[in-house]
Amino acid sequence: MSSTLFTPGAITMLAGPCSIEDVEQMETVGATLENLGLHWIRGGAFKPRTSPYSFQGLGEEGLAMMQDVGNLHHLKTLTEVMSSSAIPLIDAYADAIQIGTRNMSNFSLLRDVGIAAAKSHKPVLFKRGMSATIDEWLSACEYITMGGSSDVMLCERGLRTFETSTRFTLDISAVPVIHSRSLLPICVDVSHPAGTAIFVPDLAKAAVAAGADAIMIEIHPNPAKAKSDGPQQLTMVQFEKLMGELRQIAAAIGKEIV
Amino acid sequence: MSSTLFTPGAITMLAGPCSIEDVEQMETVGATLENLGLHWIRGGAFKPRTSPYSFQGLGEEGLAMMQDVGNLHHLKTLTEVMSSSAIPLIDAYADAIQIGTRNMSNFSLLRDVGIAAAKSHKPVLFKRGMSATIDEWLSACEYITMGGSSDVMLCERGLRTFETSTRFTLDISAVPVIHSRSLLPICVDVSHPAGTAIFVPDLAKAAVAAGADAIMIEIHPNPAKAKSDGPQQLTMVQFEKLMGELRQIAAAIGKEIV
Amino acid sequence: MSSTLFTPGAITMLAGPCSIEDVEQMETVGATLENLGLHWIRGGAFKPRTSPYSFQGLGEEGLAMMQDVGNLHHLKTLTEVMSSSAIPLIDAYADAIQIGTRNMSNFSLLRDVGIAAAKSHKPVLFKRGMSATIDEWLSACEYITMGGSSDVMLCERGLRTFETSTRFTLDISAVPVIHSRSLLPICVDVSHPAGTAIFVPDLAKAAVAAGADAIMIEIHPNPAKAKSDGPQQLTMVQFEKLMGELRQIAAAIGKEIV
Amino acid sequence: MSSTLFTPGAITMLAGPCSIEDVEQMETVGATLENLGLHWIRGGAFKPRTSPYSFQGLGEEGLAMMQDVGNLHHLKTLTEVMSSSAIPLIDAYADAIQIGTRNMSNFSLLRDVGIAAAKSHKPVLFKRGMSATIDEWLSACEYITMGGSSDVMLCERGLRTFETSTRFTLDISAVPVIHSRSLLPICVDVSHPAGTAIFVPDLAKAAVAAGADAIMIEIHPNPAKAKSDGPQQLTMVQFEKLMGELRQIAAAIGKEIV
Repeated sequence: MSSTLFTPGAITMLAGPCSIEDVEQMETVGATLENLGLHWIRGGAFKPRTSPYSFQGLGEEGLAMMQDVGNLHHLKTLTEVMSSSAIPLIDAYADAIQIGTRNMSNFSLLRDVGIAAAKSHKPVLFKRGMSATIDEWLSACEYITMGGSSDVMLCERGLRTFETSTRFTLDISAVPVIHSRSLLPICVDVSHPAGTAIFVPDLAKAAVAAGADAIMIEIHPNPAKAKSDGPQQLTMVQFEKLMGELRQIAAAIGKEIV
Repeated sequence: MSSTLFTPGAITMLAGPCSIEDVEQMETVGATLENLGLHWIRGGAFKPRTSPYSFQGLGEEGLAMMQDVGNLHHLKTLTEVMSSSAIPLIDAYADAIQIGTRNMSNFSLLRDVGIAAAKSHKPVLFKRGMSATIDEWLSACEYITMGGSSDVMLCERGLRTFETSTRFTLDISAVPVIHSRSLLPICVDVSHPAGTAIFVPDLAKAAVAAGADAIMIEIHPNPAKAKSDGPQQLTMVQFEKLMGELRQIAAAIGKEIV
Repeated sequence: MSSTLFTPGAITMLAGPCSIEDVEQMETVGATLENLGLHWIRGGAFKPRTSPYSFQGLGEEGLAMMQDVGNLHHLKTLTEVMSSSAIPLIDAYADAIQIGTRNMSNFSLLRDVGIAAAKSHKPVLFKRGMSATIDEWLSACEYITMGGSSDVMLCERGLRTFETSTRFTLDISAVPVIHSRSLLPICVDVSHPAGTAIFVPDLAKAAVAAGADAIMIEIHPNPAKAKSDGPQQLTMVQFEKLMGELRQIAAAIGKEIV
Repeated sequence: MSSTLFTPGAITMLAGPCSIEDVEQMETVGATLENLGLHWIRGGAFKPRTSPYSFQGLGEEGLAMMQDVGNLHHLKTLTEVMSSSAIPLIDAYADAIQIGTRNMSNFSLLRDVGIAAAKSHKPVLFKRGMSATIDEWLSACEYITMGGSSDVMLCERGLRTFETSTRFTLDISAVPVIHSRSLLPICVDVSHPAGTAIFVPDLAKAAVAAGADAIMIEIHPNPAKAKSDGPQQLTMVQFEKLMGELRQIAAAIGKEIV
């Protein structure tokens, strides 16, 4: 099992709840992922919420919870870093570091993460800004790689447009565009653009078929009670069903999901 | 062989050149489509070009060419109507009538096409405006159906956004959104959003996997010499290869391509 | 009094209700405009509504009403044409012909209006498509001018963006951009982008200061009872107050409002 | 002379070069501003450039230069802070702290600036994200104010849209929308949306007429040799001419420019 987010010929599944909420939640998710033969779990400990009065995450307590669950179920962990001062903490608990869409152009953070990730040999998942062109995204990525970190995976997560049926407009074309312009692998976060759980499966199938190197999906044992982004998270049962469907599409294009 | 654009459990392939240019071109395309076991050919006779000084299409001569090729190769024909005055002509030559993105809100045209299509029992392919919300698209569609025409297929063809790597941003989410809100089938035009042929195959695969009921792809025997939209058209060889890949993905989701 | 929409050194005010509804409404508006020393009245007789079940306008009856009010109050009339078949009717009643945002790329209509307007020596007001680039707008304009009609005024009316506080995002920059690229004058429709009456005055002031050659504002004796676009229409009192403010800004840049 | 960015009944002019480059440049700008009776100078010392290989600013050396020029010419200074770790440095040299468009959703930075600005009683200029709704912008602003800093001025600076004639699409409607929803004053940065110097004057006039409480304009003694954003900066001569025009429009709406 490689320590990177990317495996040639395979599609990495990056699933987990939007926010780490409690031990029981994480244990249910971890057991499900292990049973499905997957290798990563994701969860947010510091939540970049639009309003300062919304739930802001469990912080270090949450990171420790996810690490424990990861150890128990043989899963590596991925979480988002939101400020340079939090890098040492994230680095101490997580196996991969995510930079979120709202920080795509926070160049000082990018630089600091790039240096830290190079030292600790950890992969970085770098999300596209919701209104960033692909050119700007690739250019910003160099703030990470110039720090010495070359194990970077890009992550498309939907664009801000006028359409309101979905939370964001997934730019599925970003997959072939990135493959034509960069050697970096590309993940597709299908939950944030969907915004609603019923749209997630078809977007995930589209992302696999389009050639994505990883898929990110938010899952929760009880989405109705989730502390953030409940409407877009899949239940364990919905996720298990979807995994079966995705594996058939992956097989049709000569890949497996890991 | 049904006379509609939609076959339950199947994906209809709507391929052909952007513009009908000459007999040899259409014959090559028609023979390729028949050999692949497909049932429709598409081509433009009146081209809605941004500049009045660009090639405007062969008009009736082109429609006759496409009809002849259709008869020879057992293909039904689809073409765009651009004004109410042209409806009788289109109706005389084509098996299905397309309303293009620039006319999505040309409500008098929609009304007239709806009445004409109801009389001649022909299906209508109704493209989304490049900046129309899904609500507006479905609402505009009622101008067609109130004329008595219920055999309408919607067609997503990409949104106008800030991203310039592709010609438009394909809104792949429109597929599940339409399926959740309407009984009408949905096609995905993958050529116009791509803008460049190398991005077309991955977008077509994504559209099949996302559950589209039809796929529209522009193909040309010699894209470099095409009189319109050359860069986004696939050659016959590229299209044949792609058809093989799409059929494998379709099979993985329990569908066939017709 | 010139027969064109454009007067060098002046700003033409194009005010009137969204829809022509009844004689009393038009008479109130007409008297107000004459008292303010203005020369044009606008009103819609065929309304391009998103839903076919909304009020569609009074048609020819409405055109006759506006013409009568225009004659009584010495006002020229402007109204929108929505299909080629309606051109003779519009031409018979109106002094200037408007092409709306939804028809910017309805090239057959543009061509037909261009030919008709050249014959009857009437000015054309050509609105920008809500997602059209300025390049596309100027290019589409040539479909009008190639018919022989050179008396065309462009009209910016707001772009479709993600922002929902206003109905559309007014692209005020279109004023200097058009002035730098074209000899055609430019109008700014401030009502449709505003969407709400309270935002209209500040947008109108901005348009005057930015150098617009004409301003379009929707006004109604009783906006709460308007059959279309009520929330964005100003009352007569609000409009009279605004005219005073606009005249001061116009004077500050060496222009008058006519 | 108040220590805030906002003066009731007046419009604050915030002018200066994009980047602080050398003493001579800053001296020329400072003398011009003082001669015009203005009270603020702005300049960038840490530049958030899309590419890490572009000029990144003079850092503390630049801040000291601007402070010296400010002292000499009786001008207060405004500059952007790009990371929490740089707050003490910015606070030591500048009279007001700017948060840039790329950091609008960098909530940890917002929180830290809010706390620091409350302690040092300095005003904060808070730019809108280039794809942020006004709701998100106002909500994000609470991360600043909850730290105790209530002296915040919002700054509209253009939206990311499909239009490429200008660098961004100035959302002039943000002025009346903010005035209807918030007690905070609003500035309009007219240089970034323009992208080209020839469009700056008309946008500045529009912003004054629309009711902006401050205007931000980039100026440079020799824009052709500027190390960043040269094409959009006005020369001293252009700026002096524009100031005269803006003062006339301001007078027409009962305000003065300070």
